[in-house]
Amino acid sequence: MIPQDALSELASMLGERLSTGKSDLDLHGRSETYHAPMPPEAVVYPDTTEEVSRIVAICARHGVPVVGWGTGTALEGHGSAPRGGVTIDFRRMDKVLEVVPEDMLVRVQPGVTRESLNTELRATGLFFPVDPGANASLGGMAATRASGTTAVRYGTMADQVRALEVVLADGRIIHTGTRARKSSAGYDLTRLFVGSEGTLGLMTELTLRLWGQPEAVSAAVCGFDTTDGAIDAVITAMQMGLTPARIEYVDVATVRILNAADGAALPERPHLLLEFHGTEEAVAAEAARFGDIAAEHGGGAYAWATQAEDRSRLWSMRHRAYHTILATRPGATAVVTDVCVPISKLGEAIMRAAADIHASGLDGPILGHVGDGNYHAILLVDRDDPDEIAEAKRLSDAMVAHALDLGGTATGEHGVGFGKLHLMEAEHGAAWDVMGALKRALDPDGLMNPGKLVRQN
Amino acid sequence: MIPQDALSELASMLGERLSTGKSDLDLHGRSETYHAPMPPEAVVYPDTTEEVSRIVAICARHGVPVVGWGTGTALEGHGSAPRGGVTIDFRRMDKVLEVVPEDMLVRVQPGVTRESLNTELRATGLFFPVDPGANASLGGMAATRASGTTAVRYGTMADQVRALEVVLADGRIIHTGTRARKSSAGYDLTRLFVGSEGTLGLMTELTLRLWGQPEAVSAAVCGFDTTDGAIDAVITAMQMGLTPARIEYVDVATVRILNAADGAALPERPHLLLEFHGTEEAVAAEAARFGDIAAEHGGGAYAWATQAEDRSRLWSMRHRAYHTILATRPGATAVVTDVCVPISKLGEAIMRAAADIHASGLDGPILGHVGDGNYHAILLVDRDDPDEIAEAKRLSDAMVAHALDLGGTATGEHGVGFGKLHLMEAEHGAAWDVMGALKRALDPDGLMNPGKLVRQN
Ligand SMILES: Cc1cc2nc3c(=O)[nH]c(=O)nc-3n(C[C@H](O)[C@H](O)[C@H](O)COP(=O)(O)OP(=O)(O)OC[C@H]3O[C@@H](n4cnc5c(N)ncnc54)[C@H](O)[C@@H]3O)c2cc1C
Ligand SMILES: Cc1cc2nc3c(=O)[nH]c(=O)nc-3n(C[C@H](O)[C@H](O)[C@H](O)COP(=O)(O)OP(=O)(O)OC[C@H]3O[C@@H](n4cnc5c(N)ncnc54)[C@H](O)[C@@H]3O)c2cc1C
Repeated sequence: MIPQDALSELASMLGERLSTGKSDLDLHGRSETYHAPMPPEAVVYPDTTEEVSRIVAICARHGVPVVGWGTGTALEGHGSAPRGGVTIDFRRMDKVLEVVPEDMLVRVQPGVTRESLNTELRATGLFFPVDPGANASLGGMAATRASGTTAVRYGTMADQVRALEVVLADGRIIHTGTRARKSSAGYDLTRLFVGSEGTLGLMTELTLRLWGQPEAVSAAVCGFDTTDGAIDAVITAMQMGLTPARIEYVDVATVRILNAADGAALPERPHLLLEFHGTEEAVAAEAARFGDIAAEHGGGAYAWATQAEDRSRLWSMRHRAYHTILATRPGATAVVTDVCVPISKLGEAIMRAAADIHASGLDGPILGHVGDGNYHAILLVDRDDPDEIAEAKRLSDAMVAHALDLGGTATGEHGVGFGKLHLMEAEHGAAWDVMGALKRALDPDGLMNPGKLVRQN
Repeated sequence: MIPQDALSELASMLGERLSTGKSDLDLHGRSETYHAPMPPEAVVYPDTTEEVSRIVAICARHGVPVVGWGTGTALEGHGSAPRGGVTIDFRRMDKVLEVVPEDMLVRVQPGVTRESLNTELRATGLFFPVDPGANASLGGMAATRASGTTAVRYGTMADQVRALEVVLADGRIIHTGTRARKSSAGYDLTRLFVGSEGTLGLMTELTLRLWGQPEAVSAAVCGFDTTDGAIDAVITAMQMGLTPARIEYVDVATVRILNAADGAALPERPHLLLEFHGTEEAVAAEAARFGDIAAEHGGGAYAWATQAEDRSRLWSMRHRAYHTILATRPGATAVVTDVCVPISKLGEAIMRAAADIHASGLDGPILGHVGDGNYHAILLVDRDDPDEIAEAKRLSDAMVAHALDLGGTATGEHGVGFGKLHLMEAEHGAAWDVMGALKRALDPDGLMNPGKLVRQN
């Protein structure tokens, strides 16, 4: 329970930007997936770093938990408030503070979403590439080390964040990193906060890398006779050093759903969805090389999307796929798997996952960012059926165990949150204790997003 | 002083692989630059991770400092032993443990040098790109977050290390990272240990990314009318998205020295040394685009080096430049600066540095990895003249102050060690305290490479 004193201090600072209304609390306790709702006791909407610092300091003084909130699209219950406390919603901190085209950098507040950033950048010739499908906040994306369809070429959030402003658990404000392209000046704190899910501090400003808008863009859809063939084509392309901007796999079940619900009109076969970025010549050359690879692996003719509208239809269909799949079973929710394996093991991992899902009888279309060795099974479950949820979790855990055997990870991009906590010991062993030691060093009272990422006492 | 018990325990475990001979101690106390020698009390040569773990555990039990040692080429007194204790020399741990061509990875012991790794890889079609000039150990390179001439295209050590085995301050062995291309499974411990200079733990195994050997390589030398022109050409090329594999600046003073000592026969002008990697067409296209840029900035004709021997002569001259410059003043040593600034500020930073050096009367040729915004002044000083050393340090500190004003860093690649400790407060502010908190969390007794990187109590 938040002490009344703490609430009064927050109220006198924030006025109407402190909310304890039920609908607001519920909104900040819900999860995009199967996790039970866990609402906070209050939600605050700061405007400035200084306000965040004061909020956190007040909470620290009163022993109140603090949870950050971007757009709430994280999939493992990241933003829930199992111990109550205050959720800091960054939606008002949504300014693009500075564009530095000559160094290809931008400085933003954490509540800026990736789409609004790219809208703002349109005239500059630059863009921000990381694209997790959802129109997430850049603070949330950095906090989960998000990636998505374009990471295969541009890297993940970890590769884009050059510098941070962070409010620590005691309210202190620090700055990490610089605007230089590289530095050897001590521990890489920027990289430590990226992916820390708000458990070590809250990011109040991010300096991000930008990229030149590609001269030419070309997307394609390619069906394959077999799953093996599609995956082998990906492995071969990556091993040959092709640099697609996107290379996505969708299985037959996903194709059927997209055809039925989204008018995709694709042949009922496993598909790869691709995009190439570069000069006209480079794009043409890569597309031709990929065409040869596909043909050798039972790939059919490419269907090209060279018009911007066709491409945006393709990727918005891909981005909607999660919700389209959910909608096939009214009222259902999902357990979403997220393993990532070394590229050479991708076929093995996907074939085993597909067989296990088939044997279980659950619906679980598979799709993913296969150029990175990362894919998702969307395991559909009835939120009120504990047996189904347990079965889906068993499947997910088996996929993780297999991925770890293959040298991979339990989560390629979604993060740990609440839902993958029980897998960290298996993945990290004693290194998980080291994460706990770092957590205690920076947040000794355990008030920053408690219940997530590190071992719970 | 190492307690006799500790020495006996180490001796009974290591036999002749424990050394307390004066020449061995002196060798492990010396620095490549102006730092006074600070030898350890014993040097050990382990063969295995388990031995490293036992050595560190013995030292922990007896309160004895432990310092890692690769090839001793770090420039800021990194490997010196200001509090005595045991230096762990990794030279016997020099095995390439596993090459995984299908995932473009290699697993090595820390004592493998970059040249021996590339020799071993020659037949695979793959190579390891990071090249700090010196034939350093991969453990030492990871510990300092080294980069060098090729980082502009391939990134620094931080971008190559996929996974680590680390011995912690209490002797525990942990594993960080996986073989997957990305992961969101908790704090990025791999990135925390990379660049930590042996102050948080010792790396006993590294899993590194490999790259395909480029189909075509072409190097060039290009003189410019003015320093401004050379630097503006670099800025323009980087802003236009060119991807040179190397783009190095050498000033007129360096050119004169290379001509005199190394038979370089270059016109007495500031020069850029370049290399392009890629397909035949891509290399030709980039070279042509750079030619246009150079011509617009007062650049002369390119001198091309398309033969492998010519290229290797060029880069070995570049790599020897530090020692060639040192040799111009018999008996001299150097204070080597290492600031890195955002690319748009490079001209400003270099012009001010050159003017300051000129005004001081010291010799200080300037050269560096300008595509990254990183360059070095080699300030020549008499090791026994405290006034000269003080003047060189004053110049170096002024360059750092200017770089920080420009949004840059005190050290782009050499690291903090002993020599840049006093600059960390100015660069990081309160974030330096956070580094101290992490250090205390992982090394509460302050025994891992004491006196380096973090604030000293
Ligand atoms: C349909 C769909 C598709 C998706 N596809 C992908 C995908 O392809 N790739 C991918 O990576 N993810 C994907 N996701 C997951 C999600 O989009 C990402 O996790 C995203 O990065 C979360 O951003 P957010 O703003 O919604 O953060 P939130 O969900 O609000 O918060 C996420 C976490 O970050 C913390 N946090 C938020 N802001 C801050 C801050 N300023 N400082 C510190 N901590 C903070 C929160 O406390 C929480 O722990 C998908 C989600 C959906 C719903
Ligand atoms: C002529 C010359 C040119 C140079 N040019 C460049 C350049 O262009 N770019 C660049 O980045 N650097 C450059 N350097 C610096 C140097 O080469 C790098 O710092 C190199 O990375 C150090 O590697 P090493 O094996 O010699 O490490 P050492 O000097 O032996 O050790 C460096 C640090 O790492 C620690 N360490 C060593 N091994 C381990 C381990 N296994 N685990 C944990 N800690 C360990 C040591 O304790 C020490 O703190 C140059 C040096 C010289 C002499």
